[in-house]
Amino acid sequence: MAAMASLYLKTSTPYPHSSPKLPKTHFASPLTFQLQPRPALRTRVPIRMSASLIEPDGGGLVELFVREAEKDSKLKQALGLPKLRLSKIDLQWVHVLSEGWASPLKGFMRESEFLQALHFNSLRLENGSFVNMSVPIVLAIDDGQKSRVGSSTSVALVDENDEIVAILNDIEIYKHNKEERIARTWGTTAPGLPYVEETITRAGNWLIGGDLEVLNPVKYNDGLDRFRLSPAQLREEFERRNADAVFAFQLRNPVHNGHALLMTDTRRRLLEMGFKNPVLLLHPLGGYTKADDVPLDWRMRQHEKVLEDGVLDPETTVVSIFPSPMHYAGPTEVQWHAKARINAGANFYIVGRDPAGMGHPLEKRDLYDPDHGKKVLSMAPGLERLNILPFKVAAYDKTQSKMAFFEPSRAQDFLFISGTKMRTLAKNRENPPDGFMCPGGWKVLVEYYESLAPTESDSLPQPVPA
Amino acid sequence: MAAMASLYLKTSTPYPHSSPKLPKTHFASPLTFQLQPRPALRTRVPIRMSASLIEPDGGGLVELFVREAEKDSKLKQALGLPKLRLSKIDLQWVHVLSEGWASPLKGFMRESEFLQALHFNSLRLENGSFVNMSVPIVLAIDDGQKSRVGSSTSVALVDENDEIVAILNDIEIYKHNKEERIARTWGTTAPGLPYVEETITRAGNWLIGGDLEVLNPVKYNDGLDRFRLSPAQLREEFERRNADAVFAFQLRNPVHNGHALLMTDTRRRLLEMGFKNPVLLLHPLGGYTKADDVPLDWRMRQHEKVLEDGVLDPETTVVSIFPSPMHYAGPTEVQWHAKARINAGANFYIVGRDPAGMGHPLEKRDLYDPDHGKKVLSMAPGLERLNILPFKVAAYDKTQSKMAFFEPSRAQDFLFISGTKMRTLAKNRENPPDGFMCPGGWKVLVEYYESLAPTESDSLPQPVPA
Repeated sequence: MAAMASLYLKTSTPYPHSSPKLPKTHFASPLTFQLQPRPALRTRVPIRMSASLIEPDGGGLVELFVREAEKDSKLKQALGLPKLRLSKIDLQWVHVLSEGWASPLKGFMRESEFLQALHFNSLRLENGSFVNMSVPIVLAIDDGQKSRVGSSTSVALVDENDEIVAILNDIEIYKHNKEERIARTWGTTAPGLPYVEETITRAGNWLIGGDLEVLNPVKYNDGLDRFRLSPAQLREEFERRNADAVFAFQLRNPVHNGHALLMTDTRRRLLEMGFKNPVLLLHPLGGYTKADDVPLDWRMRQHEKVLEDGVLDPETTVVSIFPSPMHYAGPTEVQWHAKARINAGANFYIVGRDPAGMGHPLEKRDLYDPDHGKKVLSMAPGLERLNILPFKVAAYDKTQSKMAFFEPSRAQDFLFISGTKMRTLAKNRENPPDGFMCPGGWKVLVEYYESLAPTESDSLPQPVPA
Repeated sequence: MAAMASLYLKTSTPYPHSSPKLPKTHFASPLTFQLQPRPALRTRVPIRMSASLIEPDGGGLVELFVREAEKDSKLKQALGLPKLRLSKIDLQWVHVLSEGWASPLKGFMRESEFLQALHFNSLRLENGSFVNMSVPIVLAIDDGQKSRVGSSTSVALVDENDEIVAILNDIEIYKHNKEERIARTWGTTAPGLPYVEETITRAGNWLIGGDLEVLNPVKYNDGLDRFRLSPAQLREEFERRNADAVFAFQLRNPVHNGHALLMTDTRRRLLEMGFKNPVLLLHPLGGYTKADDVPLDWRMRQHEKVLEDGVLDPETTVVSIFPSPMHYAGPTEVQWHAKARINAGANFYIVGRDPAGMGHPLEKRDLYDPDHGKKVLSMAPGLERLNILPFKVAAYDKTQSKMAFFEPSRAQDFLFISGTKMRTLAKNRENPPDGFMCPGGWKVLVEYYESLAPTESDSLPQPVPA
């Protein structure tokens, strides 16, 4: 019961009241850094890791790709199997699983994994240790699909164009109790949860689990695939840069200077702690997001401008896209966000107010207590190796005309610019106070709202937690 | 992920198809065995345990009673503190906590424990290990009570007659998000959950946690207090009997010969496994139950008859009352039922179909998958030391005129007598088939339904899982 206290002790002093000096380097976009050639595709073969990076969950990164030499025969096999068509979001999960973000998961969850995720937010490994696993990664099928699978022990998964994506082996079909899944994952069953309405409400009453063999890496051909680095590729990049600490910043919103302050201050503190080369993984979520979030392509443009403007140091920042869909499941989901970053090599994780949260779909309040995310994360089984960095509140300091850490002793000097406020300003083509966001980044945001039809941009009710 | 398989391996062979011989001993009611004098009351002092019984969670049984010598001063102190009045069910939880059923909990949960129970069904100890803790044990207060507590760091807890029961020290008051608590504990928010309607719906919007100091053991003066053995007393009794294995059977329903078969067969199997003296803890739940369950006093009379009739061997059976209220939270609650019995010295736990389950309050189906209870129990963090014994289905074998383990190969020989069927028969003063329940036990059940007003006994919709 004192676990929390000791965990907080470990991470409780990173943010003093001074504001850091931003490094002044010329622009060299990490967005265009040369990737190492992708390693030969592997199936369930742990990848050798440098000793300096945190070990993936379960001891080895589990990639689920078919070996090049076996592709033809696997494709031939797949053509003879019952076929299940994947939705866009199902395909995002295949992407996530195939690259090992959910290591040591080997495919869509079977019932024992599903139950452990729902009840314990963790999976017990054969050696008795736990890895964190808080959101069910499952594939739903309906009665017709179940009956078409029949007694087959494998199925082929196809995309929306009926192209073969993967084979699911040694399958297990079990009941999909949607109400229970929703209640245990979101802590509410109120109608209006975006992921639920998008993927669960109309889904089938069965789940199918099994071991995945993926024929080709999932690509989106949206001009952003080059930013979608796998955990293995990220690890290689961190090693190439000789990172001795990697701190991850998950986001699904435009970056403002409060975020930037936080990230540069984190690096400063890690240097103070004795690390020689802490590297930031700026890791926007690239899967499904709700309709009123800023879409990925606009966010990437905005992030690019932020880097161009020198707000973050490209030498010590890696920008990449995290392929997971968004649940908006608050304290439950933030564990997934953190766990996946361990697999990508991050040993520090920055967590803010109300991570992965949103407004209650029916009531005028946050769905989750804004402090529960960081508390739950600090206590979560399987995340003991990850250093959780809860962040101090940044606000606009009117006396310095810039974002700074809020000081309660001079509260009157600070201005809080909420996500709603930021959106309203951008929508109305107004400018935020100088120093809130770099001008290039702000311009992208204004352009985004201009690109929307006026009727759509009129209602943007959700606040935007960092 | 193979944890379940290996756990099942450990416990998968206890029930062969033969039916056991019931031991023919003369009646010597364990209901009236002499209790050892209650050990001197202790506060948070681990009790020395014999090496032969399973260790309590956290390494020592945590009793929360004030030492005799300090009682007067504590009472005086309590009189000067803000007072919170406990409901009947709150008092049952004080009982549970005070005797160490929830060891190593030291009182009503603070927020960090509440969050761990909700999200992980377990608590992390300072040494990094986990104990199971699946249901929140919390005390709700409303705005008025919160304001009366003010800045006090301790409060006095009083019963419905305003008698001082306990002091809660080093208190922490935090938000009571009822919707989230209900969703995560029950996996539904449907109206009509008995414990929710009884204790949560109208409860205050705050929870108060802290360390308990209990002035006197909780007594009910209902003639059944002598059956309410604490974990320490049960451990002493098991040691007195030289038990080398203790197997617990949780129940909240009348015992029929199917249950008895199961319990005697378990003992037979434990003997086969090499144990010399396995003792059964027949452990009816004594706290809050829903309106259409058979009340505790009638159940105790029925259990007494079952023992008198020699269906169970008194020499190897300890009957005692488990003071916990009932949540009807299925797979979540069965973990609590099992965990509490570890603290009482049980190292084997019998689990049946749909433990702690009930019908869905709104839909015509079981609220929980009937198999999830035993699956979740077998995988639950903190219960690794407990041997889970899932039981085979017993049914009435028409060819033998007795309850026997169901054999699918001759399904036509078996009759399933559901709880609903049993209740309907008893209500109509009809007899079940010979061999379903001992005649004395059946008579008690008939008398119970006779004691109800006819209008009440007409509707008994819930099936009665074992």
